[in-house]
Amino acid sequence: MITFKSNFSNWIEDESSDSDVIVSSRVKIARNLTNFTFPHWATEAQLSEVRGFILKAITGECDFNDLILIFSEELAPQKKDILVEKHLISPTFNVKKKGLAVILSEKNTDLCIMINEEDHLCIQAFSSGLQLQKAWKIADEIDERLSSHLPYAFSAHRGYLTERPTNIGTGMRASVMMHLPALAINDEVELLFSNLSNSNITVRGLFGEGTDVAGNFYQVSNQTTIGKSEDEIIDDLQKVSKNIIERERAARQILAKEEKIKLIDEVSRAWGTLTHAKLISFEEAIDYLSMIRLGIDLNILPNLSCNQVTKLMMLIKPAHLRDSIGKDVDEDSELIARANLIKHKLFELREGVV
Amino acid sequence: MITFKSNFSNWIEDESSDSDVIVSSRVKIARNLTNFTFPHWATEAQLSEVRGFILKAITGECDFNDLILIFSEELAPQKKDILVEKHLISPTFNVKKKGLAVILSEKNTDLCIMINEEDHLCIQAFSSGLQLQKAWKIADEIDERLSSHLPYAFSAHRGYLTERPTNIGTGMRASVMMHLPALAINDEVELLFSNLSNSNITVRGLFGEGTDVAGNFYQVSNQTTIGKSEDEIIDDLQKVSKNIIERERAARQILAKEEKIKLIDEVSRAWGTLTHAKLISFEEAIDYLSMIRLGIDLNILPNLSCNQVTKLMMLIKPAHLRDSIGKDVDEDSELIARANLIKHKLFELREGVV
Repeated sequence: MITFKSNFSNWIEDESSDSDVIVSSRVKIARNLTNFTFPHWATEAQLSEVRGFILKAITGECDFNDLILIFSEELAPQKKDILVEKHLISPTFNVKKKGLAVILSEKNTDLCIMINEEDHLCIQAFSSGLQLQKAWKIADEIDERLSSHLPYAFSAHRGYLTERPTNIGTGMRASVMMHLPALAINDEVELLFSNLSNSNITVRGLFGEGTDVAGNFYQVSNQTTIGKSEDEIIDDLQKVSKNIIERERAARQILAKEEKIKLIDEVSRAWGTLTHAKLISFEEAIDYLSMIRLGIDLNILPNLSCNQVTKLMMLIKPAHLRDSIGKDVDEDSELIARANLIKHKLFELREGVV
Repeated sequence: MITFKSNFSNWIEDESSDSDVIVSSRVKIARNLTNFTFPHWATEAQLSEVRGFILKAITGECDFNDLILIFSEELAPQKKDILVEKHLISPTFNVKKKGLAVILSEKNTDLCIMINEEDHLCIQAFSSGLQLQKAWKIADEIDERLSSHLPYAFSAHRGYLTERPTNIGTGMRASVMMHLPALAINDEVELLFSNLSNSNITVRGLFGEGTDVAGNFYQVSNQTTIGKSEDEIIDDLQKVSKNIIERERAARQILAKEEKIKLIDEVSRAWGTLTHAKLISFEEAIDYLSMIRLGIDLNILPNLSCNQVTKLMMLIKPAHLRDSIGKDVDEDSELIARANLIKHKLFELREGVV
C-alpha cells in the first residue's frame, strides 16, 4: 500500500500579508477526455482505462520521483478522510470504486491532481492568504503541459465540458477561505454577502457546500464558470476579496476601539476554555479558535501567529486527530484527545500570554 | 452615622456536616405590638414611637455594648444593599422612611432584629448547613426575653397577628438554602419539588420570592405558619431537607460514576472561565461557582472547601463588590472588578488544582 504523511501543506507554512483575514486561496480546474464516458457513468474497466491514459501523460510531463500516486482501491477510508480534511479531495471521492486516483507532490503539497472523481481530471492548487494568481499559475501550468497529451472534451460554443453543468466553460473554480469574526460580531456578514449576490459570488461554510458556518470562516468562490476568461474570473474574485478584507479590518478596528474590554474578555475566555476543557468537539473548538485568531490579529495575544491557529485547526480535525492517536477511538476518546492536544499546543505556543 | 463592617456572618465560617448540599438555615419570627398601627399604615411619628418602645425592651434585655443599632434614616442606600445581600433585611426595608431600625450583634453575626420593616418586630437567626433547631433556639430565646416587656398582638384563635395573613399563627418562617446541581443536571429538581407540593413546602431561587433559580441554589421554606407548633414546622422542614440531601448526594454519586469525564470537563471549564473572564455578571459567576462547588464536593478540586465558595459568592454580590471598591462605579467597572476578584480569590485558594 502506498503511504503518505499527514504533514502540513506548504501554504499553511507560508504567512502572507492578508493572513489576518484570508486563510487560503484555491483554484480548481476540471477537465474531461473526449470519447470517454464521464466518471459517474463509467464502469470500473472504463475508469481504469482513463486513469492509465492520464497517468501516462502525467508521468511523461512530471518528475515521477516527486509524485505520490494513490489509487482509490489502495486508499484506506481513514486516509481518505485526511485528504478530505485537507480539502485535497472531496468527500464524494469513492474509495469503494476501482479506477480513481489522487496524485500529490512531495515537494509541492499545494498541488493535488484527482483522476475520475467528478471529472476525468481535476487539477487543484492552493496558496496562503489572497494569492489566487499564484494558485492559478500552478494549476494552469499543469493543465497546459497535459493538454498536449490529452484530448480534452471541448466545445467551441460551450468551452470545456464537465460533469456538472455549473462548471462548463472555463471549468475553473477559484475560492478564498476568509475569517470574518468582526463582521460576524457586528452582524454585517449577511448584509455584506447579500449585497454581493449580483457579483457572481457564492458563499459557503468552512466545510463546503451545505455546511454551517463554523468559527466565522467563509468560503467565497465564483458562481459561474462561463462567459468570462479565467483571468477575469480571478480578477473579479480578487477585487471582491480585497473589498471584504478592508471591511473586516475596519470592523476589527472599530471593535478594538469601542468594545475593547468586551473583546479582551471574549478572547481570554476562549483561551481559558480551550486550555481547561477535558472534552471538546471540533465545531466548538473552531468557534473558540476563531476568537483566538481575532485576538492574535488585534494583539490581545501577542507572540502568536494566525498560521499557528490555522495549523492547529487542521490537526484537531477528526481524521487528523485519529491518525495522530494511531488507533480506532470511540467518540469520547476523540473529544478527550482533542482537548488534550489543544491545551498542550496552546501552552507550547504561549509565551507570556493573557 | 453609625457604621458597620461588611464582614462575614458567623454561619459562613462554620462548616457543618451537610455543607456539601445545605448552605445555610434560617428562622425568622414576626411579632407585632398590640395597640400600635401595623408599620405599613403607620406615620413616621407612630413608627418612631414603636421603635423607641421596642429598643427600650431590647436594651433592657441585651448587652448594648455588643449590639449595632442602625436607624433607617441613618442608613445609606449602599449600606442597605449590603444588608439585603446578606439576607439580613429584605429589599423592601424603607430607608426613606424614619422610624425603622436594624439591630445586629457584633459577636453573633447570625442574629438580626428588624424594627418596623413588615412587622413591628422581626427576629432572624442563621446557622450553617442544616441546623434549623440551632437557628430557632437563637431567635426563640430573644423572642422569649422580649415577650415579657412587649405586649404582642396575639389572638387565642389565630395566634400571633402579622401584617401578612400568610405569617399568622406561629409568625415563624424557617428556610433552608440548598445547592442541588446534580438533581438539576439530571432534570430531577422540578419533579422533586412538585412531589413535595403537599408537604407544606415552598421553593424559591437564591434571591427570594419571584427570583430565578441561579446556580441551582434553592430556598426551601415552610408554606404555612398556622395549625402546627414551631417545633413541628421545623421538624417537618428538617425531614424534607434530609430527604433532599440524600437524593442530591445519590445523584452526585451517579454523576461521578457514570458521567465522570463530562463532569470533570464542566468543572474544569468553569474554573477556566472564572480565572480568565475579564468581565462577569453576578448571575453568570454564580452559575460557574455552582459547578466549582460541585467539583469540590466530588473531589475534582481538592484542597478547597464549599464554604470558601459560599464566601466568594457573598463578596461578589453587587453591593458587597461596590463597597470593597470604595467608590461609585459604572456597570462595566463592576463587571471588571468582579472578574478580577474572582480570579485572584480562586488563585489564592488553589493549591495544585486542575
